[in-house]
Amino acid sequence: MIPRLLATAALLALPLASVAQTAPAAPDPRARERAFDAQISSADQLAWLKEMSSAPNHVGSPHDRANAEMQLALFKRWGWDARIETFEVLYPTPISTTLELVAPERATLGGQEPAVAEDPSSAHLEGALPPYVAYQGDGDVTAPVVYVNYGMPDDYEALAARGIGVKGKIVLARYGGGWRGLKPKLAQEHGAAGCLIYSDPADDGYGERDPYPRGGGRPERGVQRGSVQDMTQYPGDPLTPGVGATPGAKRLTRATAPTILKIPALPISYGDASRIMARLEGPVIEGGARGGLALAYHWGGTDAVKVHLAVTSDWSMKTLYDVIATLPGRTRPDEWVVRGNHRDGWVFGASDPLTGQVALMSEAKALGALAQAGWRPDRTIVYASWDGEEPGLLGSTEWVEAHADELARKAVLYVNTDGNGRGFLSAEGSHDLQHLVNAAARDVTDPQTSVSVLDRLQAHVRADAYAGHSEDAVALAAAKSGGDMPLGALGSGSDYSAFLQHLGIPSLDIGFGGEGGGGGSYHSIYDSFYHVTTFDDPGLVYGAVLSKMVGRLVLRAADGPRVPARYGDFAATVARYVGEVKTLAAEQRERDRTLRDLTRERVFTLASHPDDPTVAPRDKGVTPLIDMLALEDAADRLGRTARAADAAVERLATLPPATQARTLALLRDIDQLLIDPKGLPGRPWFRNLVYAPGTLTGYGAKTLPGVREAIEQRRFSDATAYVAHTAAVLNAYADRLDAAVATAR
Amino acid sequence: MIPRLLATAALLALPLASVAQTAPAAPDPRARERAFDAQISSADQLAWLKEMSSAPNHVGSPHDRANAEMQLALFKRWGWDARIETFEVLYPTPISTTLELVAPERATLGGQEPAVAEDPSSAHLEGALPPYVAYQGDGDVTAPVVYVNYGMPDDYEALAARGIGVKGKIVLARYGGGWRGLKPKLAQEHGAAGCLIYSDPADDGYGERDPYPRGGGRPERGVQRGSVQDMTQYPGDPLTPGVGATPGAKRLTRATAPTILKIPALPISYGDASRIMARLEGPVIEGGARGGLALAYHWGGTDAVKVHLAVTSDWSMKTLYDVIATLPGRTRPDEWVVRGNHRDGWVFGASDPLTGQVALMSEAKALGALAQAGWRPDRTIVYASWDGEEPGLLGSTEWVEAHADELARKAVLYVNTDGNGRGFLSAEGSHDLQHLVNAAARDVTDPQTSVSVLDRLQAHVRADAYAGHSEDAVALAAAKSGGDMPLGALGSGSDYSAFLQHLGIPSLDIGFGGEGGGGGSYHSIYDSFYHVTTFDDPGLVYGAVLSKMVGRLVLRAADGPRVPARYGDFAATVARYVGEVKTLAAEQRERDRTLRDLTRERVFTLASHPDDPTVAPRDKGVTPLIDMLALEDAADRLGRTARAADAAVERLATLPPATQARTLALLRDIDQLLIDPKGLPGRPWFRNLVYAPGTLTGYGAKTLPGVREAIEQRRFSDATAYVAHTAAVLNAYADRLDAAVATAR
Repeated sequence: MIPRLLATAALLALPLASVAQTAPAAPDPRARERAFDAQISSADQLAWLKEMSSAPNHVGSPHDRANAEMQLALFKRWGWDARIETFEVLYPTPISTTLELVAPERATLGGQEPAVAEDPSSAHLEGALPPYVAYQGDGDVTAPVVYVNYGMPDDYEALAARGIGVKGKIVLARYGGGWRGLKPKLAQEHGAAGCLIYSDPADDGYGERDPYPRGGGRPERGVQRGSVQDMTQYPGDPLTPGVGATPGAKRLTRATAPTILKIPALPISYGDASRIMARLEGPVIEGGARGGLALAYHWGGTDAVKVHLAVTSDWSMKTLYDVIATLPGRTRPDEWVVRGNHRDGWVFGASDPLTGQVALMSEAKALGALAQAGWRPDRTIVYASWDGEEPGLLGSTEWVEAHADELARKAVLYVNTDGNGRGFLSAEGSHDLQHLVNAAARDVTDPQTSVSVLDRLQAHVRADAYAGHSEDAVALAAAKSGGDMPLGALGSGSDYSAFLQHLGIPSLDIGFGGEGGGGGSYHSIYDSFYHVTTFDDPGLVYGAVLSKMVGRLVLRAADGPRVPARYGDFAATVARYVGEVKTLAAEQRERDRTLRDLTRERVFTLASHPDDPTVAPRDKGVTPLIDMLALEDAADRLGRTARAADAAVERLATLPPATQARTLALLRDIDQLLIDPKGLPGRPWFRNLVYAPGTLTGYGAKTLPGVREAIEQRRFSDATAYVAHTAAVLNAYADRLDAAVATAR
Repeated sequence: MIPRLLATAALLALPLASVAQTAPAAPDPRARERAFDAQISSADQLAWLKEMSSAPNHVGSPHDRANAEMQLALFKRWGWDARIETFEVLYPTPISTTLELVAPERATLGGQEPAVAEDPSSAHLEGALPPYVAYQGDGDVTAPVVYVNYGMPDDYEALAARGIGVKGKIVLARYGGGWRGLKPKLAQEHGAAGCLIYSDPADDGYGERDPYPRGGGRPERGVQRGSVQDMTQYPGDPLTPGVGATPGAKRLTRATAPTILKIPALPISYGDASRIMARLEGPVIEGGARGGLALAYHWGGTDAVKVHLAVTSDWSMKTLYDVIATLPGRTRPDEWVVRGNHRDGWVFGASDPLTGQVALMSEAKALGALAQAGWRPDRTIVYASWDGEEPGLLGSTEWVEAHADELARKAVLYVNTDGNGRGFLSAEGSHDLQHLVNAAARDVTDPQTSVSVLDRLQAHVRADAYAGHSEDAVALAAAKSGGDMPLGALGSGSDYSAFLQHLGIPSLDIGFGGEGGGGGSYHSIYDSFYHVTTFDDPGLVYGAVLSKMVGRLVLRAADGPRVPARYGDFAATVARYVGEVKTLAAEQRERDRTLRDLTRERVFTLASHPDDPTVAPRDKGVTPLIDMLALEDAADRLGRTARAADAAVERLATLPPATQARTLALLRDIDQLLIDPKGLPGRPWFRNLVYAPGTLTGYGAKTLPGVREAIEQRRFSDATAYVAHTAAVLNAYADRLDAAVATAR
């Protein structure tokens, strides 16, 4: 403990450069940003990263709490009003994990990942959790293995066409193709007795880069931990959906909590997976359903290969430590710009999440320095170091749920980051913020090329398109024209979910990447200081870039009369989504009809391969024509209204102050109008009718989710109902814009 | 020797079923085809295959000659007028092949493939050639290794963008992406000192199926032999281009023969390749340029990995034995329907070529039986068992060159087959024969499904399209409508080349496949009777199907007033090709201009990856606008004329016999009008201006090759010249159709 305390003391002693010399409370925003940049130091970030990743820091670990306390001290030293908020959550940790091959031969598999000589922390695993997936269901089963590829619905259709079931079997799924947690969930729904998830080298290993430590890729015995909580229903503490996990909160029991799995599951390495896969029988898999192991893939399902899988967990309650730091606004203290990154990792968490966390700390230090030099933001800035993101966005979700009313009244923006690396800007979020992000990206310099990070991103998109790797026509058109790049839509997988999807607070998620280690250490013991500084972001050069990028977003959102939103960008994006949903319905209908034709004409029977006989895909009926006129009309109206609103905002400064204030009051919480209190079908916690994580993608976004997923999942009455509901929230948004335009007249 | 002679004697004694009982010289063609089918026996084929694949049968081997003599005896017994024609050719066989890893450690690689317990012939390799590639250039080199992916031009561009050269190096190329022989040829052109070619398991191994003997896939130590003679210049004996390799022929010397490589080359297994690849340095390869070995792929090129490669060959002349059997025509003896399949293999050649050869023998036996029952074809039928196909289409090319004048006068059709397997019909050829092939395919039953082989093919195409695997819109449209399936265009790789591309004789290449061993034994010692009967075509069920399919083509072409050609099918296909060539030019121009823009705007520099720095692709100039009006006009005219000609042919039987005869005489050799005596740019042996193998695909067809390849290879003055030349041959074809229409009026 002493070395760590000493290190913390040393970190606290890092100099706070005098900002007064470089930027006296400058009224010029550009000068203020330059002063901010001058405070950003990769050396700071390296020192923090080294200390914070020096021991396992998962929820409940001593080092996670020590990191929170160190941050608390640093925030206070930098002049912030900081505190730690705690929540009590159900978070299981493994007591024992067992995986054995029992047929055709016995072998012990699984267990902790081995140390790597080059990486000192990999040999210091005291207190580290073994590979496991959080919120699986404890159990002890022995059964034959079925390979299910990515374990997504179309994989089960491929198995069904071959007459292979998973009932009572242990499925072996590879990572990818959809969120981790969907794999055991769908396996359970199909009657499986257990689930193994492995990292296939085609997706995460030598298929992409040299395995660690020669390169940053996942080594043969590396394992991806993670959560399999059913976050598609609701994230956060499984016992307290919709409310903060405070001491007095009403709680579900573990048995009734719907986001906890019922069957045992474990993540395994591709070394272990290949031991199992080599013996599987059944038809050989060709094409996209095979991965990169050096063997022919078989579906299995016979008794040739059996494994014994057992997991026992400690299901005691654990304490979350969210560090919350506030810099009060001068003129609009009741408007909050919230910025967060989680702090907990699976083991050392050096890349995920600490590369993002130390960037956040750099920003906080720099903002503190600006404040000490006399500047105050117009709005209140809230910085958050979330705990418990990894098991299920626990820290952010519980905090948002606990403060929901206040946030709904005050929060005007949430800016999230998570693990960061060398490479290209990635930005997702609410589309009225598209120009804000692009403008900031024009003003931040890429350290490798000395052009702006926006210019570099555009070059990347254009070079990729020339090489035939990219097919995002919208991004390519923007890159060619040099205009604003489209934001991605937010799904889930990090701490913006509760802000955006439960409350409707406009949100952004920002990061850099694509030229680092490629995720080969993700959620493993190899996500270490050595790995980060050798492969992911040597020198944390892009840690500093992230601070400068996010710092601009925070400064520009916190100062001035309003968060700079462009409603036209949102309207154009929504119109595109409406077009996509229409195309989806039409193509699905066409495909359904083709399936009927092909089945009637015995095409699948006639084309069936003697070594891999298959029957026709299941007929799920023909997608009906769905009346989407209300949605089209709403999108059309939104486009016209948004143009008028953007024009009105342009001339706002010329209007009387009282008119400005009334107009701004109307626009301030407009994004929250996208919330429908009913929520989405079957998952009322998710209330944003424009942005949601997909129930069958997990992390990946589904836009206009009430309609889009209803079509995809063939709930056609839901589709019709959510055409109306979605049109209603878009019309409410347009009504508000109309009101603002009328007020600003 | 005695066991084999005994076996031959037994084969000769196989009963010739009395056809007279089942079909007395029936005037009804359908009855005749039924009688033909009744003679086709998979049991016959199994017996022949077992004997003919019982020992190595490459050019010059005793068993190759013995097989020829056995066939001669059989043909004669079946009532054919048969003889053996010999040619003297330069065909090198290896005396020694050496491959050693010399850095970073020493290891002996290469050598003969190991025996497999399940496969008896793999343990009897007396007289078998070791893995080698024919017509490489003997040499002895030690040099660093550069991985060049498929070794095609775009791979060298990828290397150039990284500053990696192959001068003085040994390149390691994987099979695929283009014909084998192009790999050492392009390596030589880039200054390489040697070339290794390996079978990557992603393309040919566990990526597709279980390695032998668990499945039919290529095992870890399996090696693909083959020819690397530069067949894109001319096939056949390297010393006698354009003339038959008869004793008195004028010959080049080995040193001046342009189709012989100058650098040493060897094929190797993926087991050996992985030993080399594991040590390579340089940037890691992502995406399509990597294969399926269980390691990260690097380009190499540093001194970290060196190999010693040496090959010494016996360059003596060898004798080819072509078996030529004739069934004289009754009414039109000077019109020949020629049908062939090669007989020589690389080792045992059970699948390639003997599965096709025994199908040919079944046909010959059945035709002989029909003849013995009193039937005679209108035209003369010539059956050929070619020798020396493997090293470079030697037997067929020399025979065609030796008999060129007679063939130009007499040959009206060439039907080729080669190795055959279980699965779907594949048909390529001259497009005026499209309906002939489809009509036959409608009348042959698929043994697995009891529908016609055409119906099964159409089901396959439709099921593949539904699964998203196929994008051939023309084939899909035909399959949906139940109409005629498009023929593929003939490139090269089997014995039709000299017929079609040197003389312009309309040609077909027919086979079944897609549900067998997948080529995992191709050109290896494992291409054995066991492999064929276990994986490729158990019971030779599809051997019989092939006989019935080809038998119909031969019977329908040999009887009746004309070979049933449809000029409209040819014209429609040519029009499609003209459209493709126009699109090619336009897209290439657009891409050239994009490259200029991206380079000027430094896009490649800005997007370059720090771990894999690349420079902009080489600027090759901007493809000019090319005037193709003459070609478009010719295609348009051809379409109109062809419709009129097809109509005229329809009513031909109603015209006076002399008119019929004059019309038929005009049409008989019309396909030869596609020949231009100048030939294609740089390769005058290839004279067909509609069909050619690509100079940078090798086997793959390039249609309208004078124009298409000139655009692709940026010989724009050639493109303009060949627009005119190609339009001229199409106009000559149309002129002839016009004359026939006028005659038939």
